Amino acid sequence: MTQVSDAYDPEDLLDLGPLPTYDGYHATQVAFPLGGIGTGCVSLTARGALVDWEIFNRPNKGTILPYSFFTIWARAQGQEPVTRVVQGPPSPPFTGQGGGGYQGYGFGVTREDGSGLPHMWSSEFRGEFPFAWVEFEDPALPVQVSLEAYSPFIPMNAAESGLPIAVLYYTVANISDKPVDVSLVGSLFNPVGYRGSGPFIGEHLGGNVNEYFDDGLVRGLRMGSDKYPADSPRYGTMALSTPWSDVFHQAASLRAGWFDAMHDFWDHFSADGTLPEREYPPSADGSSDVGSLGLRAHLEPGDSTILPFFISWHFPNFVKYWGSGGDSCCCGHDCRPVWRNYYASQWTDAADAAHYYADHEDRLYGQTKLFHDSLFASTLPPYVLDAVSSQASILHSPTVLRLPDGTFYGFEGCHSDAGCCEGSCTHVWNYAQTVAFLFPALERSFREADYTYNLDDSGHMGFRLQLPLGSPPSQFHAAADGQLGGLLKLYRDWRLCGDDVWLRKWWPQAKRALEYAWTQWDSDRDGVIDGIQHNTYDIEFSGPNSMIGSFYLGALRAAEEMARHLGEAESADEYRELYERGRARLDGELFNGEWYVQRPNWELTPKYQYGEGCLADQVIGQWLATLAGLGPILDQEHVRTTLQSIFAHNWRAELWEHANAQRIYALNDEKGLLACTWPHGSRPAIPFPYSDEVWCGMEYQVASHLIYEGFVEEGLAIVRGTRERHEGTRRNPWNEFECGSHYARSLASWGVLTALSGFEFDLPHRTLGFTPRITPDDWLSFWSVDGAWGTYAQEIEDGRGTASLRLDYGSLKLDCLVLGSVAQAAPVDVKVAGKPVAAEASMVDGRMVVCLKEGVELQKGQALTVRVG
Amino acid sequence: MTQVSDAYDPEDLLDLGPLPTYDGYHATQVAFPLGGIGTGCVSLTARGALVDWEIFNRPNKGTILPYSFFTIWARAQGQEPVTRVVQGPPSPPFTGQGGGGYQGYGFGVTREDGSGLPHMWSSEFRGEFPFAWVEFEDPALPVQVSLEAYSPFIPMNAAESGLPIAVLYYTVANISDKPVDVSLVGSLFNPVGYRGSGPFIGEHLGGNVNEYFDDGLVRGLRMGSDKYPADSPRYGTMALSTPWSDVFHQAASLRAGWFDAMHDFWDHFSADGTLPEREYPPSADGSSDVGSLGLRAHLEPGDSTILPFFISWHFPNFVKYWGSGGDSCCCGHDCRPVWRNYYASQWTDAADAAHYYADHEDRLYGQTKLFHDSLFASTLPPYVLDAVSSQASILHSPTVLRLPDGTFYGFEGCHSDAGCCEGSCTHVWNYAQTVAFLFPALERSFREADYTYNLDDSGHMGFRLQLPLGSPPSQFHAAADGQLGGLLKLYRDWRLCGDDVWLRKWWPQAKRALEYAWTQWDSDRDGVIDGIQHNTYDIEFSGPNSMIGSFYLGALRAAEEMARHLGEAESADEYRELYERGRARLDGELFNGEWYVQRPNWELTPKYQYGEGCLADQVIGQWLATLAGLGPILDQEHVRTTLQSIFAHNWRAELWEHANAQRIYALNDEKGLLACTWPHGSRPAIPFPYSDEVWCGMEYQVASHLIYEGFVEEGLAIVRGTRERHEGTRRNPWNEFECGSHYARSLASWGVLTALSGFEFDLPHRTLGFTPRITPDDWLSFWSVDGAWGTYAQEIEDGRGTASLRLDYGSLKLDCLVLGSVAQAAPVDVKVAGKPVAAEASMVDGRMVVCLKEGVELQKGQALTVRVG
Repeated sequence: MTQVSDAYDPEDLLDLGPLPTYDGYHATQVAFPLGGIGTGCVSLTARGALVDWEIFNRPNKGTILPYSFFTIWARAQGQEPVTRVVQGPPSPPFTGQGGGGYQGYGFGVTREDGSGLPHMWSSEFRGEFPFAWVEFEDPALPVQVSLEAYSPFIPMNAAESGLPIAVLYYTVANISDKPVDVSLVGSLFNPVGYRGSGPFIGEHLGGNVNEYFDDGLVRGLRMGSDKYPADSPRYGTMALSTPWSDVFHQAASLRAGWFDAMHDFWDHFSADGTLPEREYPPSADGSSDVGSLGLRAHLEPGDSTILPFFISWHFPNFVKYWGSGGDSCCCGHDCRPVWRNYYASQWTDAADAAHYYADHEDRLYGQTKLFHDSLFASTLPPYVLDAVSSQASILHSPTVLRLPDGTFYGFEGCHSDAGCCEGSCTHVWNYAQTVAFLFPALERSFREADYTYNLDDSGHMGFRLQLPLGSPPSQFHAAADGQLGGLLKLYRDWRLCGDDVWLRKWWPQAKRALEYAWTQWDSDRDGVIDGIQHNTYDIEFSGPNSMIGSFYLGALRAAEEMARHLGEAESADEYRELYERGRARLDGELFNGEWYVQRPNWELTPKYQYGEGCLADQVIGQWLATLAGLGPILDQEHVRTTLQSIFAHNWRAELWEHANAQRIYALNDEKGLLACTWPHGSRPAIPFPYSDEVWCGMEYQVASHLIYEGFVEEGLAIVRGTRERHEGTRRNPWNEFECGSHYARSLASWGVLTALSGFEFDLPHRTLGFTPRITPDDWLSFWSVDGAWGTYAQEIEDGRGTASLRLDYGSLKLDCLVLGSVAQAAPVDVKVAGKPVAAEASMVDGRMVVCLKEGVELQKGQALTVRVG
Repeated sequence: MTQVSDAYDPEDLLDLGPLPTYDGYHATQVAFPLGGIGTGCVSLTARGALVDWEIFNRPNKGTILPYSFFTIWARAQGQEPVTRVVQGPPSPPFTGQGGGGYQGYGFGVTREDGSGLPHMWSSEFRGEFPFAWVEFEDPALPVQVSLEAYSPFIPMNAAESGLPIAVLYYTVANISDKPVDVSLVGSLFNPVGYRGSGPFIGEHLGGNVNEYFDDGLVRGLRMGSDKYPADSPRYGTMALSTPWSDVFHQAASLRAGWFDAMHDFWDHFSADGTLPEREYPPSADGSSDVGSLGLRAHLEPGDSTILPFFISWHFPNFVKYWGSGGDSCCCGHDCRPVWRNYYASQWTDAADAAHYYADHEDRLYGQTKLFHDSLFASTLPPYVLDAVSSQASILHSPTVLRLPDGTFYGFEGCHSDAGCCEGSCTHVWNYAQTVAFLFPALERSFREADYTYNLDDSGHMGFRLQLPLGSPPSQFHAAADGQLGGLLKLYRDWRLCGDDVWLRKWWPQAKRALEYAWTQWDSDRDGVIDGIQHNTYDIEFSGPNSMIGSFYLGALRAAEEMARHLGEAESADEYRELYERGRARLDGELFNGEWYVQRPNWELTPKYQYGEGCLADQVIGQWLATLAGLGPILDQEHVRTTLQSIFAHNWRAELWEHANAQRIYALNDEKGLLACTWPHGSRPAIPFPYSDEVWCGMEYQVASHLIYEGFVEEGLAIVRGTRERHEGTRRNPWNEFECGSHYARSLASWGVLTALSGFEFDLPHRTLGFTPRITPDDWLSFWSVDGAWGTYAQEIEDGRGTASLRLDYGSLKLDCLVLGSVAQAAPVDVKVAGKPVAAEASMVDGRMVVCLKEGVELQKGQALTVRVG
């Protein structure tokens, strides 16, 4: 029985403050993804190095692009110049890692990232997605160097948030008392032809060309290859460019053996801060070149400037490397499906993407910054902001793709060099909330693809979308949780956009998917699922249980609401009736006074059940229903007791005594929520796989649900424990993994924000609402619905105070605002953009609802303000 | 210009004390090799886990044998039992490492080593090769658990030091106040069929059988496979056994899916401290089993016992996986040479090796312990003992082999999964001293193989022995340093054994190898090498230089001595004359007042020369000559000045400003000796490869030489710096790598011991000598020559005191003992085994030489004692 106080002082859980900083030498696991949605990414380490080049249409962990780094040269007047690779010191171990010939373990620190050259003494990293900052320190340099790195990320604007670019702004400040000449050179290997994983050097190279370009707006090196036709998966371009005007370049480093090229680079650049131009014909087969672009500045004492670099890429042709054929297809590339990335239809090549960015730099930077500022202005504990924001970086990761028509697609997560596993998996993505709130159109494209391609006539839904789009659906088990969760997600997405046309379009398919339950899982139509239930634990449950059961009840309730809205009263009544029956049985037969148990059909499924266990996910359907605005679907007191039991039994303040034969995502002194426990015994000899594991996504689900039901400290403790496990030396704060990196389930973290803010959205009725769960007298939080985002602030105490809904982006038609913190009727004074408007406040279910007489369409920069009492 | 005091307080350098201990959680790089000479090894980590299973006839870094670990169960009377995997806690990062499907990065801590099961709270590791100890701590256990691990390692006894076994003695002490029942179970995966590298699971498995055996002396599981014939490289056996009598076993863990087997293991063992027997038919193709052997004990309060486990192996057939054909030979295994390991002819299988060990346990353990105790009793600073002993572990590593006839063979070092590079490379092994002193017969087999197989009629010597033995020699450049160094090594080896028959047998070949210089490198026979000189930097020097030149001068002097001894006065005179001419030119033309420069022939070799540089290896021939007892071959004052210059210019107290485009073996705040510097400029645009690197083996060479020439602090500072780089978190103390792991050059560290003890050996004249360089008034050190080893102790101050040569192993015919610490004539009183013997002391070159009138043959346990003054 764990209590919050076993781990934390409950009061500390509410402390506000900055997010953590990461010392580059120790926080070796930090890797912050830079890139667009569906473009892949490259990640920035706490040393300030670029690693994990996952821009080649597949994951690619642990990679560094050879000799691709930044080097600064600074000469204070009358003094010797100082030259530094702009990276903190390499971190132990210094043995080299992995295998290979003349490299890897036993060959020392890699020299390919410049580790052997003089580098900064230290670095300190901060990350507030989508921004990362690195401060470098070196006692010998006459300048102070820091880096701001980001890629455009603007909620509601998926297209421009899909720019294939990493933007690096280096701030250089003269901290000496003499004028300083500065030269900052970026070097980049031309990898065009690369297979997407494995060594960068190899026979895929050849014909590589680095061309200097200057289109008036940006200038730099465009890197291509003449070896591959435009439809080849190996075809593409990269660019290293800048809008800075005082530049020099070296298209290729010395072509020579041994270490000659690096000697040549260093000796030239460290001597006088420049590199001689050098032109070569296209590279020989099997080889390529490193190109360098230098930016020069003169700084008087006290001056500082920002030296901007853009790394952009354009690898248009995505090859399906998994499934039949896969990597080792015997008949070559031609038999593997290839399609075009969505981003490839927006920009013509890497230089074009850089040009586009430069052309819209102020707006793209400004709107991304505004999103950041609005989100991080929230009066949430830092670890919550960290959980909420950091996992949004999954949208920059290779976990997600955009298909040729723009359809959003997600793996579950990433193997080191491949997606894992395919198909926007309905049961894993059940947990994910971030996309629904930040890019609702992308989330809706999940629903659309599911109902277009995964559903057969019987209502059986493949739970893994098969590519290319239009491929026949999988014939494997339907996933009960994924398929039924789809109804709840459809309901949520409709409530977020208010688009009845859209709902009506997909409603027939949604019905079919729901009613498939009657042929498969609830064949006796008693409202209780009891057939073979494949689910997110990759096995099949059997018999009544509240985990799948709550999805079913939530789906029935969501379907009832949608059917009624669409005028299908008969269906609505039928769903309602079934729901009532099922709810009665679940609450009556499965609740043991502390939690809901499973009644397995042991003959059908002799192994891998949970039986009397306390399953962390046991009321997940209720969570989704609550989040989507459906209210209680099970007895609320049962649910509350259950959530308390889950926290007490499944959350651990340390794991020293936990025996886990399964996958290890938390251990030793770490805190974590176990997927299942058997507090009163009856643990099966062979429990279901994953029962003894700790999943971040599940933790956010439970934490969010605890908070929705008022157990704020318990929910916060779970979140804090999760994030403490990702402290930079143990794990990467920007990569919560489960079955692989950047695991989509962690997108459940957005649900912690919606729970803490008590955010309600009912766009069909032009209504938003907030019930802050902490500090209602001093509250500010980010919110978003389809087409609009902004902040909500309130200072309400004892039913008196002000509330203000501010729009930072888009526009929003609004009729009503629910003030959940006001429990008694009181006079209200409402303004829109500073001007009084007519409104009426009424009390509904003990909460104040303020409705505008005329409604309003709020515009960017405007606020709706309510003074109460 | 570095001074010792820039890095250390010179007085601290002499402090004695214990060797470092390593905390298992932080010292993640510790891996201590267990195994025999030429058998491969498995390594023990500071957590107490077994890793790097390199027993399959090739290196195999980063591997863990699935589910192979030890687990303890302890139940104090009347209390709940406590069960722990006998390993310290897993260390960060917790992300998983490397690639693969459903494993590696993004899949969490590996569960294959039991990391998910309850384990010890902490572990502390100590290693004094050949012994390692781990102390485990856990607050819940009623017992204290510690481990002593080793493999027999007895200087002069190469055969029994080649037992393919890792011996693990677990001491379990009851620290509670109640009787405790204890059960310690070892689990081991049957890997027979394994390819030597890559995943342990795969199609190579199948037909694996774990059989329980009890031969009366040992009992346990013999692991084999019926899939491969006895001559297959995949054929072999392993055994997990014990001489303990109260045992239980489970031949195979549950054959089942998911995590079922581990659940079954843990649930049974943690419940009652035993496992049910289980028998299966041979495993299905592609799979194998984990077998477990349990030892039971009952301990009253205060009692302790030692629970012994033997892990032995027998993989008799070595396949040549490199060179033509190599790993991917298109015609299958049959075209690749296969030979039998020497150890395979000594024991019939893994169970036989375990039986042999048990049968001779007291003697093998006792003699290994005596070697350890004698070595570590030495009054040397701990980091010197660490350097000297730890690198002897290379003899346990896959860097070395023993060929079918017992010939010793060495790679340079190890790639992660292959030797690197082949052929007992003459130039790298030039630096190595340990084998010559501890296993002189093995070292001599190097000479024998070189002169038998590498030498052609012209005197050209391949510098990489081609396998299988008898293959034609390489036609690539002869290595000038390796070939000429051979004469010095021959001379040393003869002086260490005193076997004139052996010398006479190889003398003609040695002459031929020397005189090859006259056709190739010194074609004008002026005593100065100036042709194309391939060397240990993997490039060719040209023109006069003292690096190759000193090898040549040393070779001429060694040849002169040997020729004269063998009665070839004419040759001796010729070599002498050439030596004198060459020495005059080197000292006259290359010494620049501070060091010896190179005069490259830039037309012949436009790149990769050192020219005016200060090369750390520039007087390496003098070092070998000094060590072998030849005395000065260059002007001694020049050499001393040169060594001081090398220290001042090339040794760095930190490397922040060092720009290294080459391989990175030292960096940041670390200390290290650079291979070359250009203190007065003239650094070539493209210097020779490795010029900017730090090599441990080169550091020991220079440190040893500095100490021989009286610069003790400088030499000690270098050694301490080297070992500080190997502090367990940055690098493995038992793996100094260069071009790969366990790099043979580091065997130069034995030269630090010979230098500090001023050890002289002249077995042809039955003479040993000592001139301790530190604390001559309180000195003890280990010594060894062919057939004998022991300790030398002296307490001599102001020419008065005692000296005692004690024999711990073998026998030694001795006429004279040189007391280098006695500078003036004085009366002596000599005893052998406590009995006075007649002796005469004379002063030769200012040092006392004590000669016995009758000579003596010292036996094991006897000492020769000299009281002076």
